[in-house]
Amino acid sequence: MTQPKLTNDNIVSLLLQGDIRAGARLMRWLEDDRPEAVELLKQIFPRTGRAQLIGITGNPGSGKSTLTDKLIAHYRKLGKKVGVVCIDPSSPFTGGAILGDRIRMGSHATDSGVFIRSLATRGAHGGLSRATYDVVNVLDAMGYEVVLIETVGVGQDEIDIVRLAHTNLVVVIPGLGDDIQAIKAGILEIADIFVINKADRPGVERTITDLRYLQSLEPEPTPWTAPILPTVATHGDGIEALTDAILTHSQFLETNDERQKAAQRRQEHVLWALLHDRFHKVLTQQMLRGERLEHYLTDLVNRSVDPHTIVAEIFAALNLPTGKS
Amino acid sequence: MTQPKLTNDNIVSLLLQGDIRAGARLMRWLEDDRPEAVELLKQIFPRTGRAQLIGITGNPGSGKSTLTDKLIAHYRKLGKKVGVVCIDPSSPFTGGAILGDRIRMGSHATDSGVFIRSLATRGAHGGLSRATYDVVNVLDAMGYEVVLIETVGVGQDEIDIVRLAHTNLVVVIPGLGDDIQAIKAGILEIADIFVINKADRPGVERTITDLRYLQSLEPEPTPWTAPILPTVATHGDGIEALTDAILTHSQFLETNDERQKAAQRRQEHVLWALLHDRFHKVLTQQMLRGERLEHYLTDLVNRSVDPHTIVAEIFAALNLPTGKS
Repeated sequence: MTQPKLTNDNIVSLLLQGDIRAGARLMRWLEDDRPEAVELLKQIFPRTGRAQLIGITGNPGSGKSTLTDKLIAHYRKLGKKVGVVCIDPSSPFTGGAILGDRIRMGSHATDSGVFIRSLATRGAHGGLSRATYDVVNVLDAMGYEVVLIETVGVGQDEIDIVRLAHTNLVVVIPGLGDDIQAIKAGILEIADIFVINKADRPGVERTITDLRYLQSLEPEPTPWTAPILPTVATHGDGIEALTDAILTHSQFLETNDERQKAAQRRQEHVLWALLHDRFHKVLTQQMLRGERLEHYLTDLVNRSVDPHTIVAEIFAALNLPTGKS
Repeated sequence: MTQPKLTNDNIVSLLLQGDIRAGARLMRWLEDDRPEAVELLKQIFPRTGRAQLIGITGNPGSGKSTLTDKLIAHYRKLGKKVGVVCIDPSSPFTGGAILGDRIRMGSHATDSGVFIRSLATRGAHGGLSRATYDVVNVLDAMGYEVVLIETVGVGQDEIDIVRLAHTNLVVVIPGLGDDIQAIKAGILEIADIFVINKADRPGVERTITDLRYLQSLEPEPTPWTAPILPTVATHGDGIEALTDAILTHSQFLETNDERQKAAQRRQEHVLWALLHDRFHKVLTQQMLRGERLEHYLTDLVNRSVDPHTIVAEIFAALNLPTGKS
């Protein structure tokens, strides 16, 4: 089949038909921060909100890439197109490991029903959330019915990112022991399903007990209690129970008015990420560049002006109300 | 010795004399977000910038609390007052573990030359950085000559926090293996000294090799290469070499114009954290509250308006330039 040539005029219509070149181009433009990209995002926005978003969060070594791989295979078998967004913990240094992950997903490399996109950590203050949100929307508009968002959920930024998802899997391995502290409240709150991967190792029962204990600390009863599911992803063990649980959670969202509430939370989070991202850009382009920035920093280093006064000055210059404290 | 009664009039002068009640009160006011707190911060600001700030970053289980304990003891022996800021990865859920840490530091609990303050993760968008910065400044103004900032250093937020420190220790344990990915670029960049704690376990040589390899990937030669030091903090092994290395790094900063550059970077980071924090508050108090927020969120959930358009609208209403994209 001959494909129509991709132009600036037909990029949106081709993208909405699932054209991979069109999607890849928009993602590249987003990465390069080209102004046309936002225009295109606006145009595709009405066609978003259809994909089922599944977050997969776990420490390095928890086997979450293998799990992701099995989930891709599951949804492909159901005939669904699957998008994957991997949040790289950043940088050249992890290149090897990340590349390893991607190679493990190689079984889907030639499947046009699967689109895998890696994102590096970009800046602070909402930058990464914004980038993830944009890419998820592109995949959604392209017709990917399931979008898996894989993160090393360790920081506030990454916890924020998985708030984008409808259903969040938190992947741990047996024998949390000392690392129980690593299961942070933020992570507990976002976990819709706990997966104990590598469950052929000793300590599964203890880990289940620990997680149940943590759940019991919840101040109020919640409408959904995250099931705790053992898997051995490399052998495919427990994957069916996991995909069943994802389906059950999805149905729970539908029938309990939770989907609407979750959608609002998601949109609020995204709105804040965009606002901070834009605020950062405005300041970098205007108030906080070149000599002016140097001047402020010199004052701060010399302790001749305190930062709260400078912030008040900048807000006054922008005619922004200073708010209380 | 009878202590003078603490009042709103003498809080600054008492604080600058190192009065613990005054410092604790200001920290409590900061936590409660009371407007007087910022006023007091401005007043003490000229007296800050004297403390030596040492960051200690490591995964749960790396033994960083024990290391912190040994460092406290070392600086106390030199007759220095020591402040400690512990960034809790958050929440009631980790309460137990954190409490455990604090109890382990119990040997200093009755030493008035040591002030330990725990901070919970607070909000996104610079909130935690701001809180840490404020507490460090209070301790600094109170005359604590060494301030240790202990974090689980896993997210962007926490990496940002340790940018506050003059010298950063990154604590790992032998046998990184799969977890090499956890040593993120951000962490590598901030490491002034690597500590391989629990070095009585097997795998130390391999870990040294791995870290040296990661260091060799640095695109350009750096003026300072982080030494890699094995310790067994529980037995006190290697602590002297570590404190020597901290001193060497401190002297390096002094003699290479690095201290000034680092001070500028630190101040720039703090300024951004404060700006975002304030921006967030202004919006919460004005544009993004109550019905107006509900309205925006409903539009977003229904896909009737896209978030980029809403952001543009909010920026226009605030008379802020929209900047490019």
